[in-house]
Amino acid sequence: MGQVSEDMVMHVEKNKQVCLAAYPEGMVTQQHLQVKQVRSFFVLKPGSDDVLLQTLWVSVDPYLRLRMLESADGLYFNTFQIGQPLSTAILAKVLASENPNFKVGDEVVGFSDIAEFVVVLKGTGLSKVDVPGVPKSYHLGVLGLSGFTAWVGLNLIAEMKAGEQVYISAAAGAVGIVAGQLAKLKGCHVVGSAGTDKKVEMLKTQYGFDDAFNYKKEQDWEASLRKRFPNGIDIYFENVGGNMLEAVLQVINRKGRIPVCGMVSQYNQEWTQRDGVRNLMNVVGNCVRMEGFLALNHAETWPQFLKEVTGYIQEGRLHYSEHVFEGMESFPSAFVGIFEGDNIGKTLIKLEGVEGQENRRI
Amino acid sequence: MGQVSEDMVMHVEKNKQVCLAAYPEGMVTQQHLQVKQVRSFFVLKPGSDDVLLQTLWVSVDPYLRLRMLESADGLYFNTFQIGQPLSTAILAKVLASENPNFKVGDEVVGFSDIAEFVVVLKGTGLSKVDVPGVPKSYHLGVLGLSGFTAWVGLNLIAEMKAGEQVYISAAAGAVGIVAGQLAKLKGCHVVGSAGTDKKVEMLKTQYGFDDAFNYKKEQDWEASLRKRFPNGIDIYFENVGGNMLEAVLQVINRKGRIPVCGMVSQYNQEWTQRDGVRNLMNVVGNCVRMEGFLALNHAETWPQFLKEVTGYIQEGRLHYSEHVFEGMESFPSAFVGIFEGDNIGKTLIKLEGVEGQENRRI
Repeated sequence: MGQVSEDMVMHVEKNKQVCLAAYPEGMVTQQHLQVKQVRSFFVLKPGSDDVLLQTLWVSVDPYLRLRMLESADGLYFNTFQIGQPLSTAILAKVLASENPNFKVGDEVVGFSDIAEFVVVLKGTGLSKVDVPGVPKSYHLGVLGLSGFTAWVGLNLIAEMKAGEQVYISAAAGAVGIVAGQLAKLKGCHVVGSAGTDKKVEMLKTQYGFDDAFNYKKEQDWEASLRKRFPNGIDIYFENVGGNMLEAVLQVINRKGRIPVCGMVSQYNQEWTQRDGVRNLMNVVGNCVRMEGFLALNHAETWPQFLKEVTGYIQEGRLHYSEHVFEGMESFPSAFVGIFEGDNIGKTLIKLEGVEGQENRRI
Repeated sequence: MGQVSEDMVMHVEKNKQVCLAAYPEGMVTQQHLQVKQVRSFFVLKPGSDDVLLQTLWVSVDPYLRLRMLESADGLYFNTFQIGQPLSTAILAKVLASENPNFKVGDEVVGFSDIAEFVVVLKGTGLSKVDVPGVPKSYHLGVLGLSGFTAWVGLNLIAEMKAGEQVYISAAAGAVGIVAGQLAKLKGCHVVGSAGTDKKVEMLKTQYGFDDAFNYKKEQDWEASLRKRFPNGIDIYFENVGGNMLEAVLQVINRKGRIPVCGMVSQYNQEWTQRDGVRNLMNVVGNCVRMEGFLALNHAETWPQFLKEVTGYIQEGRLHYSEHVFEGMESFPSAFVGIFEGDNIGKTLIKLEGVEGQENRRI
């Protein structure tokens, strides 16, 4: 590939995109999203480094809710525009490439608009999928940003040590399920919480958590935690926010660490409507460090993460779960389902036999 | 001193102590404290390492309010008992010593019960006051735990760098007034807030803050901060908590740091009554680190602090202010006054010509 003498042009008659239909006020519903069919022409100029992709898998992540705002309002993330596609992590096949690093047929992961066909300008952020012996879709989950978030949070932010007491909220989610297992592999005592008895049971039997509880059934979370952490909590892998954080701050140990990758219980409220955390002052006497992070800021450690976690998977010491929806039309229900607690592990959209593929001319 | 053949005994007819009269519910008042006169007998056994002190200065610190609780309830600090003396940092003269490190007449700082005469068992935590050219009382303030807290928070916790945007709340207090000046000396842009126009004026004219505002007059703190930090806040030296923290979290920059040494606006409420912080999630996208600390946990850096800050004072580059009350009887009003915003700089009790001193027999 690389140098060619003329532009590559591709035409897709029906290219399905997931667009923002309206800014949700409060809980997001399927009505806030729209799956559009658009007619797309793609032009790749020689030497442009651009890459044309056919999307195979789409990552469905709760934090996208935070980008469905008119104003980011302190949250930092770029916001989505009405009528425009959302963007997220995808796994895709290279259909055409002006980039010497990628050739037709390569499978890659990266960030792009959510569409069946997309051009990634200059191939920015794309990387080839080339780990044998694991399902490809794992590159959007346990070997993707979800797993990396768990790994960064525990190792780089919390500086986890063997023997520590680790609590994971949203433990059956795409990140939590990895975090819990990584903490166990490190030799920690690990307790998780989740929203159904089925999830709780799975955490204990399939994912090796020392204990887990159903936060919808147990009302006094401080008591729930005290019972399961008689010696206090050293690390709280914070996924939830609100009142759960308050309960943790009552039970946290000296020099406790709280890596914060998100607060999913709070995503559907304007900030002034969110649960206030009233006992933050507890961080003083206990010298607690609470630290927000975006795993991608630690990209230099990606190779280390990939090697370590791939090893665990190949050795059968770390397991993962996916909740797979089929077809771009399923994105809105898959996304809304995350906030209803439907998912165990990673929520993904699988695309296959995409219409319009036959029409392409290059 | 050191080895003597018999016990040293001292009798004080009237030894004034500050004791807890009742656990406050809500705002502390003078009625919650009681200055008692007790008859004290002190016995120093040979070889015990104990030291008998006459208190000269008493440090009056807001955090003592957090120890006036029946249960520490997540705060970690030991609580005071009804009818028993409070304890705090004092500056005192050695009256008798079984400790080879201290001799009669030495002046020392340390922590003890708040009383005119006290024995410090084994001399634990005492250190001699020996910095020439500064007022002795500075060893309870700018050269004591207040100044050390400012220094540790900015240098060790926030890892302050030249040119950063630094916001200090409670800026006219014992800690804040040092923090602001240290940040200026480091080459930062520094803005403070305080509760009276007089304090605001002093911060700008006497203490070199780039700007300051009266938080009681300005209602929209987010707007107050945006105006003064058009490029956002890098470090928030957190002294206050509650709604001020919320305002900061709207304006904080990526990789912002929030060292937390206290949250004085919240000390007089039960935790469930405190202001909840609703936008904590902002720490995620901005990768903000919020970290509680107790300066004494960083005691190994004390010599470095003392050398640096003493130098600044002796060179006339760092100034300090003290609010001095006279006599142990004034402790209750001095302490309550802190929460009413009376103080500029360090609040201290000065003791002189203490009754009973003539009665001592050693």
